[in-house]
Amino acid sequence: MSLLTVGTVAFDDIQTPYGHAEKVIGGACTYISWAASYFTKDIRLTSIVGADFPQDEIKELEGRGVSMEGLKIVQDGKTFFWAGKYHENMNQRDTLQTDLNVLDDFDPELPESYTDSQYIMLGNLTPDIQIRVMEQLKNPKLIVLDTMNFWMDIAMDRLKVAISKVDVLTINDEEARQLSGEYSLVKAAEKIFTMGPKYLIIKKGEHGAMLMSKDKTFYCPALPLAEVKDPTGAGDTFAGGFMGAIAKSGDTSFEGMKKAVVYGSAMASFCVEEFSLGKMKTLTEQDINARVQKFVDLTSFSL
Amino acid sequence: MSLLTVGTVAFDDIQTPYGHAEKVIGGACTYISWAASYFTKDIRLTSIVGADFPQDEIKELEGRGVSMEGLKIVQDGKTFFWAGKYHENMNQRDTLQTDLNVLDDFDPELPESYTDSQYIMLGNLTPDIQIRVMEQLKNPKLIVLDTMNFWMDIAMDRLKVAISKVDVLTINDEEARQLSGEYSLVKAAEKIFTMGPKYLIIKKGEHGAMLMSKDKTFYCPALPLAEVKDPTGAGDTFAGGFMGAIAKSGDTSFEGMKKAVVYGSAMASFCVEEFSLGKMKTLTEQDINARVQKFVDLTSFSL
Repeated sequence: MSLLTVGTVAFDDIQTPYGHAEKVIGGACTYISWAASYFTKDIRLTSIVGADFPQDEIKELEGRGVSMEGLKIVQDGKTFFWAGKYHENMNQRDTLQTDLNVLDDFDPELPESYTDSQYIMLGNLTPDIQIRVMEQLKNPKLIVLDTMNFWMDIAMDRLKVAISKVDVLTINDEEARQLSGEYSLVKAAEKIFTMGPKYLIIKKGEHGAMLMSKDKTFYCPALPLAEVKDPTGAGDTFAGGFMGAIAKSGDTSFEGMKKAVVYGSAMASFCVEEFSLGKMKTLTEQDINARVQKFVDLTSFSL
Repeated sequence: MSLLTVGTVAFDDIQTPYGHAEKVIGGACTYISWAASYFTKDIRLTSIVGADFPQDEIKELEGRGVSMEGLKIVQDGKTFFWAGKYHENMNQRDTLQTDLNVLDDFDPELPESYTDSQYIMLGNLTPDIQIRVMEQLKNPKLIVLDTMNFWMDIAMDRLKVAISKVDVLTINDEEARQLSGEYSLVKAAEKIFTMGPKYLIIKKGEHGAMLMSKDKTFYCPALPLAEVKDPTGAGDTFAGGFMGAIAKSGDTSFEGMKKAVVYGSAMASFCVEEFSLGKMKTLTEQDINARVQKFVDLTSFSL
């Protein structure tokens, strides 16, 4: 079933204790689309790049079943660039440089063929762009919105408008606390449900992810890994795996979303094992099924 | 089956955003024994207090099946006292006062009737005291040792001797990193297994607990709670529930320990809901079974 992905397509410069990847491919929409492409084929990418963005990368995504009709290429523009350096513990990072470039003028007018998309993954972008996309949708089945503390700091009012229109909000634990003003995640979720979303996914990095509805909670731990080389894109990869699994099954019940959270977590566990899309481009269905089985082993017990 | 518990019995003064509990009952051995008493009856407490410790508290524990033969009461001494204040987020705390009092001279000579104990829970104490207890054991089936960063800072050599003699080590994630010099918990566990233990339990506070052996890992999340009033004793309560469940089942296989981790996590989730032993003294078997079922609901999924 059709999956619309909206977000950045970018160049990243990433420093971690494992090395330095210069001008590699990044961006939320890229990670989301790659991860989702292992589950479903009718993926519709919506983003903007400059003429400096490699054609090969575009062709590769097309080869994965991702429509590029919604990718605007600005011939005299440069692609969004982000540079960051991770601390020793990989949980914190400093942004060294952010060049918005073409992203500064991004007005996501959806191609007509995209407007009937069923499953919508709005990657982290300005709330205004996220709202603009939602206004063009004819009959979405599930809208998932990812955002971050940056927008809470500078555009909380518009962010709340965006959040009021979605089914699922994905944020990390600190952001859930900031958005709600509540420290307890149970209370934070209660407040966030009054803002519009029916479901909340709290991303906890190395501690996993939590799916919450008004009356149910599911906790999927992260897979403990011997080496995390580059956490960049892990949250977006999670979102892509989650949304890909839902677009594949069409199951938006809580049980269906639990399964999708496990698939998303499995995809994120691959993502961090190599820099950039290093691992994400090389997976097989067998790899993914074996990884998901590790989550079964990690969490199952009998009383 | 017999469970030996060793650790502090104390007065605590606790400040959290929810209030101030002055001179309430605390201590690792107290929390361990109370939690374990819901699972098994032949519990043998080993600790030291002053004449100021209330007889009623001793009688209450005896009423729960806890032998007090190993509790030394120093008639002219004062009970160990700890005062602490938790930060807004409850994950950090400042120690305001520590009066060792009678603990300063604690030489845990086990009563003869204790030396055949099968399951041994060594609460956080100086490594020398933990070693001294182990030297008196005739035929233990499972020894679990809890410790903390404080002993790593000032007595690492003796701590390593203690650790080399145990089956299971319980520490938090930062302590696992400090002890091993590895940031990845997978690598930290590998190093810690070369120090002696066959199993490692990494306590992650609000993120849950992880049980690891050389080739298996089990992750039990913490139950998300609307209110955490007082985290004091949560780790000890976890240990008491864990060890009580094992002493009850006699099952020290990885599968048996997984189940015990869930029971330990359930008991810890009760502990933090009230100050001191407020909740821990009032539970029923039904409460515990209902709470454990919440962990099943929290973690189960089908693919």
